[in-house]
Amino acid sequence: MPSKVDSKEERGYIIPIGGREDKLASPTVLKRFIDLAGGEDAKIAVIPTASKLPDTGDEYVKIFNSMGVRDVYNLKIETRLDATVNEEYLNTLSECTGVFMTGGNQLLLSTTLGGTPIAQMIRRLSARGVHVAGTSAGAAFMSGFMIASGQPGLMPRCNMVSLAPGLGLTNKLLVDQHFSQRDRLGRLLTALSYNPYMVGIGIDEDTGAFLNPAGVVEVVGSGMITIVDFSHLKHSSMHNARDDDPISLVDIRMHLLLEGQKYNLNTHLVEF
Amino acid sequence: MPSKVDSKEERGYIIPIGGREDKLASPTVLKRFIDLAGGEDAKIAVIPTASKLPDTGDEYVKIFNSMGVRDVYNLKIETRLDATVNEEYLNTLSECTGVFMTGGNQLLLSTTLGGTPIAQMIRRLSARGVHVAGTSAGAAFMSGFMIASGQPGLMPRCNMVSLAPGLGLTNKLLVDQHFSQRDRLGRLLTALSYNPYMVGIGIDEDTGAFLNPAGVVEVVGSGMITIVDFSHLKHSSMHNARDDDPISLVDIRMHLLLEGQKYNLNTHLVEF
Repeated sequence: MPSKVDSKEERGYIIPIGGREDKLASPTVLKRFIDLAGGEDAKIAVIPTASKLPDTGDEYVKIFNSMGVRDVYNLKIETRLDATVNEEYLNTLSECTGVFMTGGNQLLLSTTLGGTPIAQMIRRLSARGVHVAGTSAGAAFMSGFMIASGQPGLMPRCNMVSLAPGLGLTNKLLVDQHFSQRDRLGRLLTALSYNPYMVGIGIDEDTGAFLNPAGVVEVVGSGMITIVDFSHLKHSSMHNARDDDPISLVDIRMHLLLEGQKYNLNTHLVEF
Repeated sequence: MPSKVDSKEERGYIIPIGGREDKLASPTVLKRFIDLAGGEDAKIAVIPTASKLPDTGDEYVKIFNSMGVRDVYNLKIETRLDATVNEEYLNTLSECTGVFMTGGNQLLLSTTLGGTPIAQMIRRLSARGVHVAGTSAGAAFMSGFMIASGQPGLMPRCNMVSLAPGLGLTNKLLVDQHFSQRDRLGRLLTALSYNPYMVGIGIDEDTGAFLNPAGVVEVVGSGMITIVDFSHLKHSSMHNARDDDPISLVDIRMHLLLEGQKYNLNTHLVEF
């Protein structure tokens, strides 16, 4: 369950980004995140844990600096020990107005941060109004369940996807990233077919799903967001399927949304 | 408009097949077509016009013979002249209980047969109860509109598909074939977005969509059929799009169906 929100406070935005967001010519997605977090006065913590490259955190510090944010901190959390005993990281994090998780491998995020004081702190901050963004692996990790790995393709098949517990900032979403670029509708449908209560959000590259505290997702960026709504599902053959069997699904509702369009997770409707 | 059905008669099945149907080990789709057309007593006309290979028609004659049908005729219609003045072809066709159009290029079918006595005859036969099947290009050609060509991909984009008039056995369907194998959801969505009245049917290889006279489509074969229903569509951005722009679509209904499942084109519901 996501951390409880104090009655006086409002939850922060939860911002999964589909990967490969523009960092130079028109960094619309990152700019919107910065604006939410306070613009030039934002304090942003970068968490590069998903990445195996040594410079990923420093690069995002430079990017956010170049966009006018002075206070950007690279929390180089590489081990569970870093995520547990490093008081400096916890203190820095606790004063931030925005948290940004980079891309890489979402299993590095979940295995390194899962259950640590850093993960607990990010959950509490989100409940207190701090905005948390993640790109690619960082996006996958944000929800209660994440897609750990899978195969590309249009059709859902039984064994094409692996789920794992995520950070749990929200339980309403199941996120997939690099969505149309890597042909991932099949694996998202398979992942949702296990238990249709979640809304599937397939996010293209250079595109962010800005989920506000009221439960409304807004599309920001140059790509598309595919909303997959199983709330009316009448039939799934998942319980009978095995190996590579295709999965029959009856009454999938789907919306393909571009920049500025909004979807309400509570009403399951696109807002006009 | 499809040819009118005489009040005493029933329209034949319309059977688009997704291509690469099994012809040897378990020819489920072809077997079902043969059974409808009369089993061993069927008289089947093969129309290989879509194919540029010289043997396609003869090969299907052998296949149907090997499945127990004695009376199989290869109508080698290669030009508009063949489709216009060849009385023997017309006479043979008029006595058939089943018509089978092979794969190849659907534009060869439409440019060679469009408006000829052969096309008119197939339409009248279908209205009189003769079952008409087509595989791959032959499947694309059957409806009032066909997808002439397009690009693969998950997301609909403005310029990714070309439509052309088809044979017009039904106006309710827009067919796409080799559907998940060639990643064709995007182009089917684009094609439907021009005018949402049609139901999109994406047919996988070795799979047939058996449309009965009551308007119910049944899945036969080893693959999946993707039904795309735009009858509840609330928004399409197609009128504003150009070049390679992605198309926003709100409230797509989709069903992924396997062998034995049925979809009613009149009620827009999967039948249980």
